[in-house]
Amino acid sequence: MTTTYTDILIIGAGPAGLVAANTASENYPDKKIIVLKEFEKNQVPCGIPYVFGPTLGAVEKNAMPCGVPMPNMQVIVDTAIKVDINTKTVTSASTIYSFDKLIFATGSLPFVHASFQDAMHLENVFSIGKSYDDVKRIKDYIEDKKQITVIGTGFIGVEIATELVMMGKDVTIIGGGGILEGSFDPDMAMQAQAIMQEKGIKLALGQHAKEIKSSQSKAYAIELCDGTLLDAQVVLLATGYQPNTKLAAEAGLKLARYDGIWVDEYMRTKYKDIFAIGDCSARRDFITRDPSKVMLASTSAAEARVAGSSLYSLKTLKGFNGTIAIFSTMIGERAFASAGVTESRAKEENIDFVSGFFEGFNRHPATIPDAAKQSVKLIAMRNSGQIIGGQVSGGKEAGEVINIIGLAIEAELTLHNLTSLQIATQPLLTAAPTNYPIVKAAQNALKKC
Amino acid sequence: MTTTYTDILIIGAGPAGLVAANTASENYPDKKIIVLKEFEKNQVPCGIPYVFGPTLGAVEKNAMPCGVPMPNMQVIVDTAIKVDINTKTVTSASTIYSFDKLIFATGSLPFVHASFQDAMHLENVFSIGKSYDDVKRIKDYIEDKKQITVIGTGFIGVEIATELVMMGKDVTIIGGGGILEGSFDPDMAMQAQAIMQEKGIKLALGQHAKEIKSSQSKAYAIELCDGTLLDAQVVLLATGYQPNTKLAAEAGLKLARYDGIWVDEYMRTKYKDIFAIGDCSARRDFITRDPSKVMLASTSAAEARVAGSSLYSLKTLKGFNGTIAIFSTMIGERAFASAGVTESRAKEENIDFVSGFFEGFNRHPATIPDAAKQSVKLIAMRNSGQIIGGQVSGGKEAGEVINIIGLAIEAELTLHNLTSLQIATQPLLTAAPTNYPIVKAAQNALKKC
Repeated sequence: MTTTYTDILIIGAGPAGLVAANTASENYPDKKIIVLKEFEKNQVPCGIPYVFGPTLGAVEKNAMPCGVPMPNMQVIVDTAIKVDINTKTVTSASTIYSFDKLIFATGSLPFVHASFQDAMHLENVFSIGKSYDDVKRIKDYIEDKKQITVIGTGFIGVEIATELVMMGKDVTIIGGGGILEGSFDPDMAMQAQAIMQEKGIKLALGQHAKEIKSSQSKAYAIELCDGTLLDAQVVLLATGYQPNTKLAAEAGLKLARYDGIWVDEYMRTKYKDIFAIGDCSARRDFITRDPSKVMLASTSAAEARVAGSSLYSLKTLKGFNGTIAIFSTMIGERAFASAGVTESRAKEENIDFVSGFFEGFNRHPATIPDAAKQSVKLIAMRNSGQIIGGQVSGGKEAGEVINIIGLAIEAELTLHNLTSLQIATQPLLTAAPTNYPIVKAAQNALKKC
Repeated sequence: MTTTYTDILIIGAGPAGLVAANTASENYPDKKIIVLKEFEKNQVPCGIPYVFGPTLGAVEKNAMPCGVPMPNMQVIVDTAIKVDINTKTVTSASTIYSFDKLIFATGSLPFVHASFQDAMHLENVFSIGKSYDDVKRIKDYIEDKKQITVIGTGFIGVEIATELVMMGKDVTIIGGGGILEGSFDPDMAMQAQAIMQEKGIKLALGQHAKEIKSSQSKAYAIELCDGTLLDAQVVLLATGYQPNTKLAAEAGLKLARYDGIWVDEYMRTKYKDIFAIGDCSARRDFITRDPSKVMLASTSAAEARVAGSSLYSLKTLKGFNGTIAIFSTMIGERAFASAGVTESRAKEENIDFVSGFFEGFNRHPATIPDAAKQSVKLIAMRNSGQIIGGQVSGGKEAGEVINIIGLAIEAELTLHNLTSLQIATQPLLTAAPTNYPIVKAAQNALKKC
């Protein structure tokens, strides 16, 4: 057993851990930083669906970069097995790491519903783990299989299903609700659903999967809640993730709802020298202020920047004011993106809201060769006009259009700010200045205020 | 001579006039609105460069839409020749329009330097007018010409040159400064210049064009300030535009610097019933507060929305708080965009600023098939960290990335806000969450504060 001292110790080398290390390294160039990385090879988390289809095509093409090498930072492949808060040490099989500041960046693990736990030992049932080995195992197994059933209609399930069907697989996707239902209202989600159908994906929606039927260590069918049996040659469970907090809990750190590690707005736990960031930390929603289950690498990176610059003292007034739940994806040739609350969620939260919708084109005039339709929906508080949500579908630019809406939410702007928004417009790149969908949607929402 | 009464009269049917009409129509459904349109057929202003090349290829493909038809709004093809403020009438050749509220949206006309005025009668010298006939005349004339010289290195000149070279023309572009020099610092502008050179455009930079040499009613060469003579078969003057304010000046309206019609922040002239919007109105810069010569359809549309909803009473506190100068364009396969002030301009204005730069990829991992480099530069006040400018180059998404920066400027956000910015990131659509160029550029700028 060797003993190593480090000023800053980070457990985890996913997006949160690496960004925290990089930020800390720049903020505290005189401090020694060690990052513990559990696996030799990691995957870019949001790139995983694309290794299964033509887009990346190989697990190797989705390798997580090691981060920017910094003179005061060291990445060590080692697994923490115990954290002692009193002695300020972290122990692995071979080493005791003694630290001044500790950051938990232990990420998340696939969530598997109790009714599927037993099926996890079957050779053709997989959850979507995030290590190289997890992904490689699935990729190799499905190579020569024709039929694949995906359980789960969130982003990961939808993206994997779309990639697999492009590989000529026979794909069924099962979900209790609609496609991407948590992030889109039905009007936008139906566009996504139609594209999936056109691509030949079989949709089994509205009935939860109840049981995975098996025989001789292999699943052969999925039983839905209404008793329907769907044949299955391979089953992929894309049913979300849960905070990986076993180590933190055993160390005595307080967990919050959904089992994330409790942190304040500067990502500090109850102990001033111990931080938690990324999927393992407890989050709350920017708008509803409720605990949030949303897990996003971009949120993790933002949290990591706050933590990485707040280790020894707080430098700016506000840290991280809640997660905005800002997503994007692509289904076929069409991008879909969402930020903040949907109309459905606003209703559930008893928010008095208005919404505005506009459909135009992402180029102008619409005779520009690659012009595609662009739809924008905005959701705002009825009284103040404050923007609380938005949904976009369109060409690839939708991935950045949603970030304009996200910034409007984060900066607490109103519909009035957006109707006189100054925008760069250009025939080959954007919608027309006269019909810029964000502005038109804001105008349409204002009419209802 | 017939006499017609209308509640709201708008002179001009460009982007400003049409958006004002549409906004007024929605805000005041009981009022009668007449829009006077000078020409039967208009062009989408920023689409004009693309009729000369393969992108649109035909003047007809760049037709300006007539705006959304509204029951209380009428568009009449007629030319205003006199405005009488006292009697509240506008006179054309055949009609006296009597109004309650008047909006000048008379736009801009090509600016031609005094030294080229005489050359304008030559059959092969053209400025870039914005009517169908103006554009058609040029398009038809250059059809069978091989060599084209463009004078002016702003967006219009650069876009026309790029389209023409793709048609197999022999193109020379002349400018006293560098390519897009007003909107980009040299580091970004050089990327644009390199692409133009690769495409085979001949660059004659650093020397102003001094004289257009002609013989027998045809230009044959351009003489530069240093005496160099460049052969020219066709000359296109892309040397900017000036406010079209003859009518307003004759009516006795006050003009401001650069001859724009003086307006307050709600686009009202000195007369409470008379408004001016778009290129004919005087503008000031959002950051420097100086008068601004920037002319953009998107600014015009924003002004038109303010005016169109403020005709009978002011509805929101702030109107239009100065133009941000937010542009984008595409040169070859690469998009370039700029917002606010450049470093060069910040120096001229004696602003104590910092800047931060980052170059990454617009997809993640960078193995995604259509990944391209994305560069972002941010410029901020040194003390407050307030964002005052940004420049982006990248794939087509850059056209919307600049709008995120524009919103940050307009919302008076700081570098600190951007380092914890919540963004949607997705492999097929955006940069990585760990290396999102806006965030990284903000971090790099903060290091210098």
